[in-house]
Amino acid sequence: MVRSLAQLAALALLATIVRRAEASGVALMPMPANVAMGSGRLVIDASFSAHIEGYTDRRLQAAVARLETRVERRTGIPLQHGGPAVLIVECRGGGPEYPSLSEDESYRLEVTESAAHLTAPAVTGALRGIETFVQSIAVDGQSFYAPVMRVEDTPRFAWRGFMLDVARHWMPLPVIERNLDAMAAVKLNVFHWHLSDDQGFRIESKVFPKLQRVGSDGNFYSQEQVREVIAYARDRGIRVVPEFDIPGHTTSWFLGYPELASAPGPYQIERNWGIFVPVMDPTREEVYKFLDAFIGEMAGLFPDLFFHIGGDEVLDTQWKNNPAIQAFARKNRLGSSAALHAYFNRRVQALLAKHGKQMIGWDEVLAPELARDVVIQSWRGQKSLAEAARGGHRGILSFGYYLDHMQPASMHYLVDPLSGDATALNTQEVALVLGGEACMWTEYVNAENVDSRIWPRLAAIAERLWSPREVTDVRSMYARMDVVSKALEWTGVQDRPGIDMLERRSGAGDGPLRVLVNAVEALGIDQRQKARHYNSFVPLNRLADAASPESEFVRHLEQIVADAPMDSAVRGELQLVFSLWSQNAGELQDVLNSRFFLVEAAPVSKDLSRIGDIGLRALQYLESGAEVPRDWLAEQRQELDRAMLPGAEVSLGAVRPVRALLDILMPSGRSGNPPGSH
Amino acid sequence: MVRSLAQLAALALLATIVRRAEASGVALMPMPANVAMGSGRLVIDASFSAHIEGYTDRRLQAAVARLETRVERRTGIPLQHGGPAVLIVECRGGGPEYPSLSEDESYRLEVTESAAHLTAPAVTGALRGIETFVQSIAVDGQSFYAPVMRVEDTPRFAWRGFMLDVARHWMPLPVIERNLDAMAAVKLNVFHWHLSDDQGFRIESKVFPKLQRVGSDGNFYSQEQVREVIAYARDRGIRVVPEFDIPGHTTSWFLGYPELASAPGPYQIERNWGIFVPVMDPTREEVYKFLDAFIGEMAGLFPDLFFHIGGDEVLDTQWKNNPAIQAFARKNRLGSSAALHAYFNRRVQALLAKHGKQMIGWDEVLAPELARDVVIQSWRGQKSLAEAARGGHRGILSFGYYLDHMQPASMHYLVDPLSGDATALNTQEVALVLGGEACMWTEYVNAENVDSRIWPRLAAIAERLWSPREVTDVRSMYARMDVVSKALEWTGVQDRPGIDMLERRSGAGDGPLRVLVNAVEALGIDQRQKARHYNSFVPLNRLADAASPESEFVRHLEQIVADAPMDSAVRGELQLVFSLWSQNAGELQDVLNSRFFLVEAAPVSKDLSRIGDIGLRALQYLESGAEVPRDWLAEQRQELDRAMLPGAEVSLGAVRPVRALLDILMPSGRSGNPPGSH
Repeated sequence: MVRSLAQLAALALLATIVRRAEASGVALMPMPANVAMGSGRLVIDASFSAHIEGYTDRRLQAAVARLETRVERRTGIPLQHGGPAVLIVECRGGGPEYPSLSEDESYRLEVTESAAHLTAPAVTGALRGIETFVQSIAVDGQSFYAPVMRVEDTPRFAWRGFMLDVARHWMPLPVIERNLDAMAAVKLNVFHWHLSDDQGFRIESKVFPKLQRVGSDGNFYSQEQVREVIAYARDRGIRVVPEFDIPGHTTSWFLGYPELASAPGPYQIERNWGIFVPVMDPTREEVYKFLDAFIGEMAGLFPDLFFHIGGDEVLDTQWKNNPAIQAFARKNRLGSSAALHAYFNRRVQALLAKHGKQMIGWDEVLAPELARDVVIQSWRGQKSLAEAARGGHRGILSFGYYLDHMQPASMHYLVDPLSGDATALNTQEVALVLGGEACMWTEYVNAENVDSRIWPRLAAIAERLWSPREVTDVRSMYARMDVVSKALEWTGVQDRPGIDMLERRSGAGDGPLRVLVNAVEALGIDQRQKARHYNSFVPLNRLADAASPESEFVRHLEQIVADAPMDSAVRGELQLVFSLWSQNAGELQDVLNSRFFLVEAAPVSKDLSRIGDIGLRALQYLESGAEVPRDWLAEQRQELDRAMLPGAEVSLGAVRPVRALLDILMPSGRSGNPPGSH
Repeated sequence: MVRSLAQLAALALLATIVRRAEASGVALMPMPANVAMGSGRLVIDASFSAHIEGYTDRRLQAAVARLETRVERRTGIPLQHGGPAVLIVECRGGGPEYPSLSEDESYRLEVTESAAHLTAPAVTGALRGIETFVQSIAVDGQSFYAPVMRVEDTPRFAWRGFMLDVARHWMPLPVIERNLDAMAAVKLNVFHWHLSDDQGFRIESKVFPKLQRVGSDGNFYSQEQVREVIAYARDRGIRVVPEFDIPGHTTSWFLGYPELASAPGPYQIERNWGIFVPVMDPTREEVYKFLDAFIGEMAGLFPDLFFHIGGDEVLDTQWKNNPAIQAFARKNRLGSSAALHAYFNRRVQALLAKHGKQMIGWDEVLAPELARDVVIQSWRGQKSLAEAARGGHRGILSFGYYLDHMQPASMHYLVDPLSGDATALNTQEVALVLGGEACMWTEYVNAENVDSRIWPRLAAIAERLWSPREVTDVRSMYARMDVVSKALEWTGVQDRPGIDMLERRSGAGDGPLRVLVNAVEALGIDQRQKARHYNSFVPLNRLADAASPESEFVRHLEQIVADAPMDSAVRGELQLVFSLWSQNAGELQDVLNSRFFLVEAAPVSKDLSRIGDIGLRALQYLESGAEVPRDWLAEQRQELDRAMLPGAEVSLGAVRPVRALLDILMPSGRSGNPPGSH
């Protein structure tokens, strides 16, 4: 039993290492355009109250009421209400009741020792300023307080979005609502709701009720729930853009309405992941009649000006095999499947225009005759964004912001909508780049763990889209992200790795399991689809589903190694971690072998212990100052490369700090990777 | 930094120690009346499905659907549905749609390697059996499974209740619903809803809307929500008994309707805790007219046969100061305030009878002329329960089950409704003892931490009320409670100490804070009200509010000490814990001093370190085998007594295992306390 205690300390170590980052004080994220910290504090206690001065409306009142509740929760102090204002919120006007792309989101927040004054041209700006005020609340030995400061802030991009796929795995209403709260906290303003796909049709249609009745397994949002979500988002300054992906990705439509398809049915709900053959028939007027009625219904439900029609990954197998479609194509001089798709898009765009909506599509919809007001969402590269702009289309960037690829926050953070091909754009073209959108596709994610794959990385993307272009310090971003990540938990999102769930399910409250989870990182969609045949029935209850995309623990270790000089305290700390890793496999063996869904993790666990051993030997060399044999170094590097190979659908992030340590031992001296890079 | 690692390992140690208990396998709680474990397993995988055979109704179907969802969550495996039944549920009949006191709750569950068969005379029995089945699900290296077993089960008492005070601190709907789920999991069947008190009137009246409009601070349940709760409870086999506490505890009624009071108003919502003077006027017919209409309204809302009228802690100041009341008393030969109270109760009982309800009251209502069908809830001692039975009244015991007193589960567990004064009852009188009810009064508890003060201790009381009288092994109870506690988290109740909240609020992810919280125990209402002047505005965000009533960590340490012989492994484990405690104050100093709501905890933290030192020295004596100086022992005992004195409204539970260790060192040999005793 005693020998296990060293092991268990690793878990505890996480707390200490993280604490260091958290000691950094007020962490604003996204970083405001201008912020000047003063000295002194505005005390936040039971007398706190927020008053509206001047313009007022229901949305602003609701936001101020929520703010008071949040201050109560944050501090644990019941507010007495009724006293003089501590925070004064003053808008010059209302702005649109439902948020719009062109609205003014700027605000100014001045905190003095006696009061805080938030001013904004319109309500949405006040909403953003309230978030900054909440983020600024800190605590010390005297009180909770907001530091004296002056913030003048406005976003860099007008379109700062997050897309969630609710088709491949169903996301119940509470998932949506808590993520809207978290989005608001980091000033995101577009929720792109991917509502239909081959695997499910997730919204009630009253005009075509078979869509949800036979196409959803019973998992869909009622129109009442959709209105609730829209109101919830609107109150937080977030637009809701629905996506109905057509003409491909439409299997779920065809269960109830096979006449829309390009080949006869019957169809079944798709249970696999991938790109599938079923596609709408672009040649039949009945299809456009259906879409006219459907778009009309949905246009009445969703107040946003924009309407997403997907348009990605269209396979032409059914078109090619259907003589009537081919005849139509010949007759109408649509000489290729691309031309057929473009024809379909033009027809759909006309329907949208008729119902007062502007179209958005994934970058496949970009074609010469496309209406100018169509917005292009670029997912295959930045090139299409630049092409779109040159063609006079507005665009939003998603390439580089795919959260399901499980890349580190730093990678996403350094993707700028105006970098790459966009650097060659002229001023007018640059103005057409509206911003960006992070995407969460849900083949390998379910309602249980989706939060931990969205957050906290989405906060880094939010900063990219809000803050000035020059705000690019990765270390500062991570330090603030660690604080914001903790604060986001007040919204109910569960952004930490799913260790609790893993432990609860395995009936084991094990430190060693926690050590393993914190040392590994979940693989992204590309690698998981190669690892086994997935479909919607495969359980997501394994190590890969509990692990983070990016281990906070490993990241902090990397930072320690990068922060040489390596004094004896740092060496001691690393030694303890490596010892724990070294012994962890032995500790964990029984647990893994007696939980069938963890058996596959045993080799990863053994690799972690080997990495620990390498780290321990490296530390010995470092301490003794002895010459390190080149052969030994080469061998260990090979061993690390091998250990880095995925197993159990995770990657051993723990390799990185050890590799950086070996770099320090290199006779040529230090050449470690910067923290956060993979 | 390195020196802190030992500290932090304490946190991790908790995991190991707890793991030991969890390794014990299937934990049924409450223990069924008869259970025979077989060998072999029924595999639970994606093919799991539960079918109803024979009698069916909406409530049973809903329970079976919930069961399938719970199996999916418990295992993380999406069920394929549509296959042959793995669990067959067979009821002979429906039983009452709304649960009743006299219904048959028995069931029989037979699990073989091919299927599980649950049979019950009525639906409520099937609900109980489903909970047993869910509790039995385990996991090993092969699969999730239910062990082959045969259970025949029926409750010992028909009334197994839990009372929640929603007046002193407001409890939003989700708190109620998740606790109903947890109640169902341990087969409790009465939710006693304390809906009004001096501090708030918490339910909508349409007949007298000023009750909630001015008496609730806006915190009340709409009638629609009440119907939702009743339906939710009914579906889980739980009756809902409303309590409207009269004639005392009624300040909140008098804001809107001062004419009900025995002295002129105006009245304000009471913000303090205690017993207050405002009391209804028992002499005016208008009061009974009001109550008639009010009871009529509520009788229509609550389907339960029983209606609780409180009746406790009636102060007669207003009665004595009101000449009209005194004149009435003289005229009607009501020679004392007790007689006036009894008169009031008789009138109210008649109104309840008119509306088809049977009355329950706290034991103060017991009086000679009281109608026989009135149920007495005994809170001041078991004596009144026996007196009630001798007077022909049915009774339920709450004395000994007050969760707000923060006593250990073992104490509650050993309180038997038929012990104490009840042992002298004859068979007929014994039959009048219906069962018991745990009570959670909420002066020192809010919606944030109430779960952790109800659970897991309520599970021990649930076992007392369900299982055969002979089931009294405290150690077995604790071992099973630890498992059930983890399982209860599936319901959403947060039964662990509120460390996360404390850490989130203090912006510190600190191992040392966790070490401290796990070493202390929250004081109960008696001691907290002496510690400072509390009212409804005092924040509950401090160490005492995060600490458990009973530290699981300390309890496991006590068990280790009690489980001598103390081999070197055990001594090493204790040494590590004591070292951590010893160093913890130094580690924690900065954190406590820089969080104003934790500053008060610094002396407790220092005491913990002193206790650690004593433990370390005791271990040295134990190891060396040297004679222990009696003076030293006496001194340390004094030091421990001093450290046990409350500070920061917590008690240092950590003293107990160290005291037990000193007992072992006593020249006369071992005389440690049994684990769990304070």
